[in-house]
Amino acid sequence: MYPKSLNDLIESFKYFPGIGEKTAERLAFSVLDFDEEKVELFVDSLKNIKKKISYCDICNSFVEDNKCSVCSDDTRDRKTLCIVEDAKNVFLIEKLQVYKGLYHVINGLISPLDGINPEDIGLEKLIDRVKNENFNEIIFAFKPSIEGETTALYIKKLLEGLDIKITRLASGLPIGADMEYIDTLTLERALNDRKLIS
Amino acid sequence: MYPKSLNDLIESFKYFPGIGEKTAERLAFSVLDFDEEKVELFVDSLKNIKKKISYCDICNSFVEDNKCSVCSDDTRDRKTLCIVEDAKNVFLIEKLQVYKGLYHVINGLISPLDGINPEDIGLEKLIDRVKNENFNEIIFAFKPSIEGETTALYIKKLLEGLDIKITRLASGLPIGADMEYIDTLTLERALNDRKLIS
Repeated sequence: MYPKSLNDLIESFKYFPGIGEKTAERLAFSVLDFDEEKVELFVDSLKNIKKKISYCDICNSFVEDNKCSVCSDDTRDRKTLCIVEDAKNVFLIEKLQVYKGLYHVINGLISPLDGINPEDIGLEKLIDRVKNENFNEIIFAFKPSIEGETTALYIKKLLEGLDIKITRLASGLPIGADMEYIDTLTLERALNDRKLIS
Repeated sequence: MYPKSLNDLIESFKYFPGIGEKTAERLAFSVLDFDEEKVELFVDSLKNIKKKISYCDICNSFVEDNKCSVCSDDTRDRKTLCIVEDAKNVFLIEKLQVYKGLYHVINGLISPLDGINPEDIGLEKLIDRVKNENFNEIIFAFKPSIEGETTALYIKKLLEGLDIKITRLASGLPIGADMEYIDTLTLERALNDRKLIS
């Protein structure tokens, strides 16, 4: 019904997670309103991304030109390692500008129900790295979930015997949340992990 | 902070109306997960759209290869003209598969507060067309708003003296809506336009 090239573009937008028919149509129509230059910039950035972005040999985060900005930064604290489930979480944490240690990206979380087993998430490389470098603390920055807990416990077990402090991000009430909208698991965790006011 | 090519792509996504920083990041990250072929299809469809899509000489709707599928369809009812404010609305109505007449796309609605005056929306071409063709009915399919009403009344005035029935889409309660969530203007319109149950 739409002209073919418009239809093709709508289908392309539907590749994206969370974008359905209506949104894809809206996005495709807005491309029609773009000037040539904008479309070209967009096309170039799409072409570049697959060409230029690769993964850091050390931490698995995204790198451009084979140089990871965290791993190659001599001012970082090389005694602390933050383990994340996805490279994009490195950037979430970097944005805070409070963490000064290093990162290691694993390939997702253990989730047997989804067919993701410990051998699928690249733990060998992580364990090798931890054994060869000299970390004082390892922080698990996984999402608070069964899969997050499972993966943290599994890695902790693999590191048994090493003299390293192992921590995880705090769970509890998100700042600004209304008490009545907090789910019971979060509330329970917040109660169990309550902190002394000093 | 992001690698440059990733940042460029995020910026590109932010061109789209309704897409903010967070969504742009999410979309850009999902491109990283696409395989080469998907990215290429996307790039091709973006490049094609500006090259192939133009506007119908008669009705101003989108056409590919200079041939408007509605205007060139001999089975359409050439006595009825539906006027819409945007080419995409042609496709919204075509999807219903109930309207068999022709269309005319004007360039937005009159809105003096936004600096859009009658001379800005291409009414001359519309009036010429109506005077040269032989329509029995003209339907205004504008969004129910001050601007929609103003534009409809303005065009109606321009067509004064011609023997053409002029109608607009019905306003009223949307199907399935809860009465308590209906705004007062809509409810008032629904009351004024009440229909006899026969």
